[in-house]
Amino acid sequence: MDALTRYLDEHRDRFIEDLKAALRIPSVSAQPAHRDDVRRCAEHVAAHLRAIGMTRAEVVATAGHPVVYAEWLGAPGRPTAILYGHYDVQPPEPLELWTTPPFEPVVRDGKLFARGAVDNKGQLYMHIGAIEAHLKVNGALPVNLRVIVEGEEECGSDSLETFLRQRREQLSADVIVISDTGMLGPDQPSISYALRGILYTEIHVQGPAHDLHSGEFGGAVQNPGNALGVILAGLKDADGRVTVPGFYDRVRAIPPEEKALIKSLPFDEAGFIRATGAPVAWGERGYSTYERTTVRPTLDVNGLWGGYAGPGSKTVLPARASAKVSMRLVPDQDPAEIFPRFEAQVKKLAPPGVTVEVKNLHGALPFITEPDHPALQAARRALARAWTKPPALIREGGSIPVCATFQEVLGLPIILMGFGLHDDNVHAPNEKFNLTSFHGGTKSVAYLYEELGAGVKAVSHAR
Amino acid sequence: MDALTRYLDEHRDRFIEDLKAALRIPSVSAQPAHRDDVRRCAEHVAAHLRAIGMTRAEVVATAGHPVVYAEWLGAPGRPTAILYGHYDVQPPEPLELWTTPPFEPVVRDGKLFARGAVDNKGQLYMHIGAIEAHLKVNGALPVNLRVIVEGEEECGSDSLETFLRQRREQLSADVIVISDTGMLGPDQPSISYALRGILYTEIHVQGPAHDLHSGEFGGAVQNPGNALGVILAGLKDADGRVTVPGFYDRVRAIPPEEKALIKSLPFDEAGFIRATGAPVAWGERGYSTYERTTVRPTLDVNGLWGGYAGPGSKTVLPARASAKVSMRLVPDQDPAEIFPRFEAQVKKLAPPGVTVEVKNLHGALPFITEPDHPALQAARRALARAWTKPPALIREGGSIPVCATFQEVLGLPIILMGFGLHDDNVHAPNEKFNLTSFHGGTKSVAYLYEELGAGVKAVSHAR
Repeated sequence: MDALTRYLDEHRDRFIEDLKAALRIPSVSAQPAHRDDVRRCAEHVAAHLRAIGMTRAEVVATAGHPVVYAEWLGAPGRPTAILYGHYDVQPPEPLELWTTPPFEPVVRDGKLFARGAVDNKGQLYMHIGAIEAHLKVNGALPVNLRVIVEGEEECGSDSLETFLRQRREQLSADVIVISDTGMLGPDQPSISYALRGILYTEIHVQGPAHDLHSGEFGGAVQNPGNALGVILAGLKDADGRVTVPGFYDRVRAIPPEEKALIKSLPFDEAGFIRATGAPVAWGERGYSTYERTTVRPTLDVNGLWGGYAGPGSKTVLPARASAKVSMRLVPDQDPAEIFPRFEAQVKKLAPPGVTVEVKNLHGALPFITEPDHPALQAARRALARAWTKPPALIREGGSIPVCATFQEVLGLPIILMGFGLHDDNVHAPNEKFNLTSFHGGTKSVAYLYEELGAGVKAVSHAR
Repeated sequence: MDALTRYLDEHRDRFIEDLKAALRIPSVSAQPAHRDDVRRCAEHVAAHLRAIGMTRAEVVATAGHPVVYAEWLGAPGRPTAILYGHYDVQPPEPLELWTTPPFEPVVRDGKLFARGAVDNKGQLYMHIGAIEAHLKVNGALPVNLRVIVEGEEECGSDSLETFLRQRREQLSADVIVISDTGMLGPDQPSISYALRGILYTEIHVQGPAHDLHSGEFGGAVQNPGNALGVILAGLKDADGRVTVPGFYDRVRAIPPEEKALIKSLPFDEAGFIRATGAPVAWGERGYSTYERTTVRPTLDVNGLWGGYAGPGSKTVLPARASAKVSMRLVPDQDPAEIFPRFEAQVKKLAPPGVTVEVKNLHGALPFITEPDHPALQAARRALARAWTKPPALIREGGSIPVCATFQEVLGLPIILMGFGLHDDNVHAPNEKFNLTSFHGGTKSVAYLYEELGAGVKAVSHAR
């Protein structure tokens, strides 16, 4: 066993404690009440990066939540990598469904439970552990490294784009590394070559000017709750297809070689559906579960509210009913192009007697790269060293809004090497990260920096 | 001016203060947190009835909220009336839409604002003022009187039915008087000869066992939010008709003489719709606004919830989505007969991939009596004395669940003489009662007791 691997093994427990300290900070970027917590988390991460030997660790103010930046440029002549991660987390609600409080991390049965355990503090701290190991064991990293950790990934990454554009000249690099994706199974390391984009909207249906007595007025005016039902029902057909005109126009057909790749994947569909607890798989007719969540776009209600939701019965005809509705997009769909079509369709579906407002909360382009890109080959080698199986090449259903920005602003290849599992309850109560994934991931990214140090020049030239 | 009328005029301001004291008690029967407030309100009303000279004023414990009972039987040989009212109120939410707090009554611009201002504390206190006036001026009431004030009108009146059945023998009477309905306009007194019934349900749609990440899983499983939309959309057709099979089977056709009566009503449709603030009238095709809210049944969403409803975007695929849905029923629809049909229709409408639970929260039969019933003629005479116009005979869109119970258990005629207005914001924020309605109503019911004392024997025999 080499010194690097031994160091990683010997410091496992302390790496967990370091991660727990970060998880205790409720850095919920979408909720204004947590603004100070978000900032505190940025400072915590910057201080940690400084402590392990990164230089210039700074908390950069933005129009929104701050960006953490740090670098280590002590390997002149070697390639430069940018590590991207995020320290913000999803809202923890509904709180009553958590077995233990979301911001009091605890290990049960080999799993670390907390909001952000895997998304993304856990995966970020794999890198922090790997960087520490290289710097302690060798006094140097195998590559030059810039670390960018944002605080708005869960609410649109608006400020990061400005940060990247402003610093474009200073951020010279050869490759970008991101660990915010998943593995096909607990012992199946994976590399993601595509992500879905997103368009996240809010629909507000207004009927009467104020709540009405449903006995006195019921039947006389359109009910915005019923009207919202009509709109939501009309957005997808019985075959699970989105009805927005032109929605599928830019969806790429899957080339034969990718179809073959998909077919060869050890994707456990039954296990995937079992992890949801849903009675059956259901989705767009004509596609497999893997395809429905990766190569096909979709539309989901993320939340709805209106009228009386308390105990018992209140006989009210509500003034207003609302829903959050998001679409996952695939190459080459563009949220800027789809939003006005979506808005028009919502208004067209609205029954008479209500006014409808549609808000565009945020959007992100989908991302795709060649599965056999040289950058991904370095990642394959690293994973093959750290695990007992060669990695699978997969598409990911989620979105990392910044990937398209990185591609556009910096024009660099991106390695998506993540270690989440389908049952990690990401964005849901009882989020967890398996300790085997965390430790295997830490080892994998430590090896990745070695592989990149040896061969990344070839990568950036090949692009 | 007779002594009774003078007493009523001289004590106007104090009657308002008495009402305000009752309005300050947040007797929200549907919310368990207010259980003690509900009991406190019962005790407050009982003490007040005792103070003005009613005998046997008692707070009667039930399986739910208590019933207040009081009587004055000092006119042997005279007829006996039962006054029914309720001291409980609707939940005040959404609180942020109230101009002043719901349980801090205040007079602005000739109107008293508070939850319960009109429904029903305000209308109950008209009677309390009238009873006080008779007892102070004449030392007696013109009729024997039993007062029954319940605390569960806004949540199903379950306990009152038990109370009535247990005391059926002791509750001998000739007529029932209820002021919990409205007038066609501020200077148009009205008598209601019909009420709609109600069936109030809750629909729970369960998809996955727990919230999921909408990127990772979006497209693979049915979304309960989308599914709830499909269900709600399917419950009514584009003509505003309820799709539940057999729903209209027992709806009575309107006889020609009632059609003529309806046609003659000074119903201000434009003003009625204006009071809602809705952009246009909308409802079942082929019927007028008055008909849609009185002689026709309807179906309304009272509330819906599920997933994330906080600020910003949470990319969650929710485990569960729910709605409260109620139907207003007309003679001879029966909620007990309609519930299983509704439940079956909801389950039939549910798309694949979810499980659906439908709960029956409560039901009440519709109520109707002959518009020219002798009991209603006594009420007409009283209103003609108190107002400048003769009363209109109307149907009411709301429900007073206990009316059917009174008809069934006690077999007595019911006078529905109420003074609410369409813009009173009943069951909504900023509920109010015009002081002119309150004072005119107090005078009207004082005269009603006189008219009943003179002629109610004819009434009960005529039935």
